[in-house]
Amino acid sequence: MRRVAIIGVGYTKIGRHWGKALRDLFAEAFINAMDDVGWPNVDMVYIGNMASGLFCEQENLAALLTEVVSLNPTPAVKVEAACGSGGAALAQGFMAVASGLYDTVVVAGVEKMTEVVTRDATKILATAADREYEVFQGASFTALNALIMRLYMNKFSAPEEAFGAFAVQMHENALDCPYAQLRFKISISDYLNSTLIADPIKLLDCAPIGDGAACLVLCPLEKARELCDTPVEIAGVGLATDTLNVSTREDLLTLKATVYATRKAFKMAKVELKDVSFLEVHDAFTIMGILALEDMGFTRKGEGWKLAQEGQLARDGDIPVNPEGGLKARGHPVGATGIYQAVEAVLQLRGEAEKRQIEKAEVAALQNVGGAGGFVSVHVLRRV
Amino acid sequence: MRRVAIIGVGYTKIGRHWGKALRDLFAEAFINAMDDVGWPNVDMVYIGNMASGLFCEQENLAALLTEVVSLNPTPAVKVEAACGSGGAALAQGFMAVASGLYDTVVVAGVEKMTEVVTRDATKILATAADREYEVFQGASFTALNALIMRLYMNKFSAPEEAFGAFAVQMHENALDCPYAQLRFKISISDYLNSTLIADPIKLLDCAPIGDGAACLVLCPLEKARELCDTPVEIAGVGLATDTLNVSTREDLLTLKATVYATRKAFKMAKVELKDVSFLEVHDAFTIMGILALEDMGFTRKGEGWKLAQEGQLARDGDIPVNPEGGLKARGHPVGATGIYQAVEAVLQLRGEAEKRQIEKAEVAALQNVGGAGGFVSVHVLRRV
Repeated sequence: MRRVAIIGVGYTKIGRHWGKALRDLFAEAFINAMDDVGWPNVDMVYIGNMASGLFCEQENLAALLTEVVSLNPTPAVKVEAACGSGGAALAQGFMAVASGLYDTVVVAGVEKMTEVVTRDATKILATAADREYEVFQGASFTALNALIMRLYMNKFSAPEEAFGAFAVQMHENALDCPYAQLRFKISISDYLNSTLIADPIKLLDCAPIGDGAACLVLCPLEKARELCDTPVEIAGVGLATDTLNVSTREDLLTLKATVYATRKAFKMAKVELKDVSFLEVHDAFTIMGILALEDMGFTRKGEGWKLAQEGQLARDGDIPVNPEGGLKARGHPVGATGIYQAVEAVLQLRGEAEKRQIEKAEVAALQNVGGAGGFVSVHVLRRV
Repeated sequence: MRRVAIIGVGYTKIGRHWGKALRDLFAEAFINAMDDVGWPNVDMVYIGNMASGLFCEQENLAALLTEVVSLNPTPAVKVEAACGSGGAALAQGFMAVASGLYDTVVVAGVEKMTEVVTRDATKILATAADREYEVFQGASFTALNALIMRLYMNKFSAPEEAFGAFAVQMHENALDCPYAQLRFKISISDYLNSTLIADPIKLLDCAPIGDGAACLVLCPLEKARELCDTPVEIAGVGLATDTLNVSTREDLLTLKATVYATRKAFKMAKVELKDVSFLEVHDAFTIMGILALEDMGFTRKGEGWKLAQEGQLARDGDIPVNPEGGLKARGHPVGATGIYQAVEAVLQLRGEAEKRQIEKAEVAALQNVGGAGGFVSVHVLRRV
């Protein structure tokens, strides 16, 4: 198996891009990534995207996007695993290079969520849950996360202030991130007073809806230094699934897919928890961010909320998490999120993260989730 | 790069399955494929599917399907390239095994198209075309193919009877195929008198709408004989794109992506045209079947229609095509089609195709198309 490196990154600011279509967002991120690495020939393209069919009435998305950036006849396919589509696409990009079938591979994540009204976006996001057993009963995605959060609060006596502390930290991190969607400070009282969406989830527990595209260029590690001064190796790849229907899980408070995917990725990369310089976790809701800390093994089950409340997730804390603000504040264009995580990790590992640089960043672990834990990818990236 | 074999196949009959949901169709095909090979442990699952979001309000499809067949935590992702989703997924399955990251990989294609009314299905299928430059102007998918067919007829003096001969042949082939959707004979006068859909495309030029699922089990070739008496090697993989928007192509009558993908797959498999025992081509419309013969190199541009009219596409002809009846008569559950092609090829290469067996079948070439040629996959399968 060939070793694989990321040699270029590009991205758009995340937000409500009235003036830019899905294809324009991709083109911007692609051009930035190619500028970053000096325009090598591209052999294959993967597009992580959750729901261009429902959001934009556009399937055959990957072929369309190759046309937009004049890459034909370079092959391209779309990869879907709901909000985990970006991480799923990254794993395919890894395999494409590792197998030897392709050398230079572009992996992008794109999502345009604001072409529909918010009510419809909620309905579209619910397609990540089980339509027949969950959505037909009236469960939205927020409602499912609310059930999990309420159970967690009851079982582990976690106060709402702890979730607030997580949200406050993410917004603080995003202040230094030029591509973040919600680049403003919030206080704990802002959090506590924010609108209740689905009890106990408040507005400020939730990642926002937004548009964005992020792009990576991959190649075999052995060729990476010819194209790039600071390659970052994809050292570990772990993918796993769990039941989509959360009600059939043995334990609602453990994302088993995170546990399996972490184990797999860490084993492949030959790293342990103590080797990890910082984390990117999938905090679509604050409860998901806290569960990730536990399921990846950084603290015991039921104690993740304490890490948030004690401030250990800050960039200079014991376990720096989402140095750019996470889904919560950087933004969450769903199918693109996994690639945005990788972009931030590469910038950090290269030492190019400017004001938000984490000192001595050597190894990053990235967790990306599809649905309420039905799909999870974990990637370990390493400076080489 | 490890060599890769197909060691198990399963499928459902194609048709209007009122009583079976998308998940049920997958489960049936999966169980049949696992029965075929003796239930090895599965390391990874790929699902080829075009539009479960639009047809069934269900994304996160791959994770859902692993739950249905109790495969969690085995990882799973969905791959989309419109009607070429099956072929795209097969290529990912190949890379997953070839890379060494996974050993036993399930690749399925699934589509449930009849949960919506026909008018909506037409609209959903149009998402394989360019929404902003084609669909907004009123072009349906049939309309785009009609433009291509009209131009072909004018330029090459191809009579409508030649397209009719193609359709008649496909229906004749399907008579011997137990899983075909349209298992009945048609005559040339049935064809000529069938309803005009989009001039010059008649009803009997078109593949039907249907539900179905097909499933393959892949493993490294070196392990294949432990699990299966008659492994079939995936000897060549070629993928390519072209502009989605057909109006921007240099030549409307050449699917360049077919040309590129064929060249790539044949080169990798080290085969030439003369080595190919039979073809599976993507005849969503008869014109597409005829263009495939030309673009894959089996005849000169403008002469594909003659092969059909001369009867050379029959199972005992010079270039046997779609021995099970093709998209036209076997049926075309869009995201599953590429996997149905592989299933038929495996049955033929194993010598298990019963009444429709092609004599001395050694090598098969499979062409699967997304949109009107925006994406094409070509796979070469070989008896080993």
